[in-house]
Amino acid sequence: MPGTKKKGAQTVVFDNPLVLTAWASIVGPLEGGGPWGQDFDWIMEDYLFGEQTWEKGESKMLRETVKHALNKRNLEPADAELFVAGDLLNQLVSTNFAARELSIPFLGLYGACSTMAESLIVSSMLMDGGFFDRTVAAACSHHYTAERQFRFPTEQGVQKPPSSQWTATAAGAVLLESVGVGPRITAATIGRVVDMGQKDIADMGSAMAPAAVDTIKTHFKDMNLPTDYYDLVVTGDLGKIGMAIAQQLFIKDGVSPRPNYSDCGVLLFDDNQGALSGGSGCGCSACILCGPLLKKMLAGDIKKLLFIATGALMSPLSSFQGESIPGIAHAVVIEN
Amino acid sequence: MPGTKKKGAQTVVFDNPLVLTAWASIVGPLEGGGPWGQDFDWIMEDYLFGEQTWEKGESKMLRETVKHALNKRNLEPADAELFVAGDLLNQLVSTNFAARELSIPFLGLYGACSTMAESLIVSSMLMDGGFFDRTVAAACSHHYTAERQFRFPTEQGVQKPPSSQWTATAAGAVLLESVGVGPRITAATIGRVVDMGQKDIADMGSAMAPAAVDTIKTHFKDMNLPTDYYDLVVTGDLGKIGMAIAQQLFIKDGVSPRPNYSDCGVLLFDDNQGALSGGSGCGCSACILCGPLLKKMLAGDIKKLLFIATGALMSPLSSFQGESIPGIAHAVVIEN
Repeated sequence: MPGTKKKGAQTVVFDNPLVLTAWASIVGPLEGGGPWGQDFDWIMEDYLFGEQTWEKGESKMLRETVKHALNKRNLEPADAELFVAGDLLNQLVSTNFAARELSIPFLGLYGACSTMAESLIVSSMLMDGGFFDRTVAAACSHHYTAERQFRFPTEQGVQKPPSSQWTATAAGAVLLESVGVGPRITAATIGRVVDMGQKDIADMGSAMAPAAVDTIKTHFKDMNLPTDYYDLVVTGDLGKIGMAIAQQLFIKDGVSPRPNYSDCGVLLFDDNQGALSGGSGCGCSACILCGPLLKKMLAGDIKKLLFIATGALMSPLSSFQGESIPGIAHAVVIEN
Repeated sequence: MPGTKKKGAQTVVFDNPLVLTAWASIVGPLEGGGPWGQDFDWIMEDYLFGEQTWEKGESKMLRETVKHALNKRNLEPADAELFVAGDLLNQLVSTNFAARELSIPFLGLYGACSTMAESLIVSSMLMDGGFFDRTVAAACSHHYTAERQFRFPTEQGVQKPPSSQWTATAAGAVLLESVGVGPRITAATIGRVVDMGQKDIADMGSAMAPAAVDTIKTHFKDMNLPTDYYDLVVTGDLGKIGMAIAQQLFIKDGVSPRPNYSDCGVLLFDDNQGALSGGSGCGCSACILCGPLLKKMLAGDIKKLLFIATGALMSPLSSFQGESIPGIAHAVVIEN
């Protein structure tokens, strides 16, 4: 891995790799009952998490995830210099209200489901630039808050087509430090918006797959790496259909990542959990990263990980107005 | 001004001050008819800007503002390495669709009306860190898209209380380069979320004023500067009521900026334009900065500017659920 920064390219290589010294994940009951239940820090008993509304529960989930990550290093929120995070809700309210309680200087991001990668990238670049020594990057989503905001009133019980995905109720937070022990962020690729004209809001995976492939292709090109460099290349939440499209595009573009390519949306749920094409939402890739993936890195089972969170950048309004669904994907390299 | 970075503080000082080599602003008819009409690059004839919907018009306004700023340096979107921007709409659709057309690697931000400062800060830190040589920071808002999203259907013609503000139809974009001629960003202060329990969504200025004062106070303390250091200290969009509260808090806290303190929301409109307490929206501070203020810096009338964009971080849903309005403010130092 080269130690220089490549100016002008979409990929930045860090001179001073940032250390993931602690992380945490909190997930909902469905997510906790899936194949990775034992890898999350905390499984909520219900979707309210002791609050009066789902939205307040989501905000609490994010706040507690951040505090839990800090707590693993015996730190308080006041010990963090910067909080970089986002969620799916209008005006980022889950994150804003979490930031209010945490009272850490705060930069809010919106990258739809790509937010976990975006927050890691912004944090890493600011730290590598020498501005901060300790930041928290985080993202969250909540099935019931997203469902009623983006789709239908939850009480309506609208049946979903097989291409649709299940927004994960989950939060992930990473404590990044300039000095410490843990996996390191060594490079990152900032994505461009890619839109192939897909308009079906019940099929986000197809809309995001081309952006994921564009970023992965750019990453390998910028870094001049063989496609078998990473132990695992994992996309954010393409789901089964999006992942299948990505795999076809990999073959077409000659960039099939080996030996292991997977997708957090495919990984999060078992087939019998009713998640249709798979998980989605900022929390999906956030909890898979801050749960099983980083645990496997700590155990040495994964040494080199390319984590690509993917986002569908439409709103209900843009879809009502006939617009297609733009996608974006940001890639983060995490190495032991 | 010291040349070192202050780690741990909320304020960062740039080793390699970033140059604002070009900027542009596009505003709506009302904004163009105000006191600064001659200082904007382009005044739209109507609020649709040739598009079918206000939202598409807003996205075009942002896109054209970015292209116009680049064009002043004979550059194309492809010449920019990074686009950092945001707006007020759910899921940042105006910005996302502008980013799709511009096809520049993109980081979306949500800081409500504080976005212009947030985008300048993130861009500056990434450039000072050595990752990029040419980025675009931008923000926009549109009166009619914001009105129907945050408040009431525009057709309803709901009468507003005197404390309410008029969301500006405006976009501002700054081209930042690591080498060039122009005013420079020399320091920045990242704000914390401050919430004094104000719940009146028709009075954003009061909700944001404490955050603005907190950031300004922190800035002067971190930088160890006298309160008469800047030629102008200008907040984002507190409006008349918020600005009056800020001035009271300045006196209480002993940090009254001299000789000139003003607010973009107070500046944008004339009293007879029906904007009540003043302008608001990301576009308000963005167009005042990228219109009259930077023009005055170029002319030498302002040499040292402290620009503090302020954001109210609620959503209609958080207000319906009884929450108060959290505020945030980020400060940027621009010097000749």
